[in-house]
Amino acid sequence: MRVSEIGEDALIAAFAEIYRSRAGVLVGIGDDGAVVSSNSPLQVVSTDIATEGIHFNRAWSSATDIGAKIAIANLADIYAMGGTPKFLTVAISAPADEDVSYLLNLARGIESVAAEFEVSVVGGDLVGGSSLAISITAFGAVERPVLRSNAKVGDKVFLTGSVGKSLAGLLLLSKGLATPTSPDVRVFQRPEFTPQILFEFGLEKVNALMDVSDGLLSDLPKIAKASGVGINLTFSESELSYLMPLSERVGISPLELFLRSGEEHSFIAVVSAERHREVPKQWIMLGEVVVGSEITYHDKGMSLHGKSWHW
Amino acid sequence: MRVSEIGEDALIAAFAEIYRSRAGVLVGIGDDGAVVSSNSPLQVVSTDIATEGIHFNRAWSSATDIGAKIAIANLADIYAMGGTPKFLTVAISAPADEDVSYLLNLARGIESVAAEFEVSVVGGDLVGGSSLAISITAFGAVERPVLRSNAKVGDKVFLTGSVGKSLAGLLLLSKGLATPTSPDVRVFQRPEFTPQILFEFGLEKVNALMDVSDGLLSDLPKIAKASGVGINLTFSESELSYLMPLSERVGISPLELFLRSGEEHSFIAVVSAERHREVPKQWIMLGEVVVGSEITYHDKGMSLHGKSWHW
Repeated sequence: MRVSEIGEDALIAAFAEIYRSRAGVLVGIGDDGAVVSSNSPLQVVSTDIATEGIHFNRAWSSATDIGAKIAIANLADIYAMGGTPKFLTVAISAPADEDVSYLLNLARGIESVAAEFEVSVVGGDLVGGSSLAISITAFGAVERPVLRSNAKVGDKVFLTGSVGKSLAGLLLLSKGLATPTSPDVRVFQRPEFTPQILFEFGLEKVNALMDVSDGLLSDLPKIAKASGVGINLTFSESELSYLMPLSERVGISPLELFLRSGEEHSFIAVVSAERHREVPKQWIMLGEVVVGSEITYHDKGMSLHGKSWHW
Repeated sequence: MRVSEIGEDALIAAFAEIYRSRAGVLVGIGDDGAVVSSNSPLQVVSTDIATEGIHFNRAWSSATDIGAKIAIANLADIYAMGGTPKFLTVAISAPADEDVSYLLNLARGIESVAAEFEVSVVGGDLVGGSSLAISITAFGAVERPVLRSNAKVGDKVFLTGSVGKSLAGLLLLSKGLATPTSPDVRVFQRPEFTPQILFEFGLEKVNALMDVSDGLLSDLPKIAKASGVGINLTFSESELSYLMPLSERVGISPLELFLRSGEEHSFIAVVSAERHREVPKQWIMLGEVVVGSEITYHDKGMSLHGKSWHW
């Protein structure tokens, strides 16, 4: 059935059945707005919009995975502020001839992430439009915000998880080297998102924090600029051996995959030198905060061709 | 200059110069998320998405007015819950060849409304897309939420301002009977939004509340359904004389203009019978809450052709 046939009320009722209200929701979907409660005096807010053909391609990912991936991107922004997400709103524009079951599966994907991270979708909007666009706003509680702007010279820069496989998956799909059912494209379709490692390490030990959404090459300069520092990357290419098989298949070096891959939502965590031995073993030490404003690799300049601007 | 030429960072910096942070903003635009403070244990949240060609037409309204109108629609949802809006996020998708100054004027329109109602735009997103879509999420504080679901049989149903001129303006423009500079289309371009009258009357005296966003014919049944009641409209057509000149020009009766006009964001306020004489003089008494589930007009059935679904 198409969206134009079911009507707004029936579709919103179907969404409302998919989304579960969890702790803190006093009034959920159905009134002019939602009412939520929060004991925290500080809240974190972040919004994203994803459009078909630019942020997602329905030939390459299921609707459920697309919904989940967009939700993860939003939650990552809240965690990247040192916060804990609590509530989401979801605004969708869709063509009149869009399949209703496709939109319901998008919602199921969003809800699957909401359930995993104990977050509630409390409201939304659904309108006509020439193409599919999904805007999610996330908000949560935070005790002590962790900003991008507090990296200090001498601090160590860590990556909380591996990156590279998402771009490899995208390239495999776009070059026709893998099908959507291949395990090699799974991270591209739905990132492995493990923000709990931040809390396990202890956010109070993190000086500056952001999630890798556009790729290290785009995102490291944002921390450097916000903090008024440079970053010298010191990791060894041998640490990227996990990317070697994919690298050979897509014809791009492991280093470039590592530096350019986005949407995996690992975190860049900047930690004081004296605490850097306390970080979990699986974190990758990227390098060190230095005087200046450049991102260098083993003290040599890098040309930053990375663009976060999605056209 | 086009969006594809200026680049994301420069455009976000330009937005950040337009939007002013007001009370309660600890971290505004520029990090992974915004950090805001609230003394209220209860928050209200609402989200909308507006798409070009369906919700707005740039031939008929300036970018500033379009931005203002979308912002008003979002604030209205917060007020319609009995809340006070505090913060907005703005997510925009735009074609790569969109004019930068057009997007900046949209932002100026949003900011003009934010300034008037002492609200802060604290974050946003800007991405590519095949058409222009603007999603705003508003949140605010509320002490005592006023829901749609608390209308009781015997209550009186009021409209806090006039409606009808917005649809008249839309029809004048779409039929080529007026130009965008005509005063007759001004309410369509930018609604006169006066939520403060709710506080002046006293929200504690309002049993049920919603804003008129899709037109009375669409919105009255939502209050009736949520409350499990019917509404018998008792106003006289003579009260709609203010719509007569416009009605003649567009060839639609004042009653139909009144019942179908949306986006003016007056409020439907349901008040107990014993307090109904306390309401401000300019409020229009629409009718009375009755047993049943229908919307009737002087006890006669109405056929509800109104659709809130924008295709």
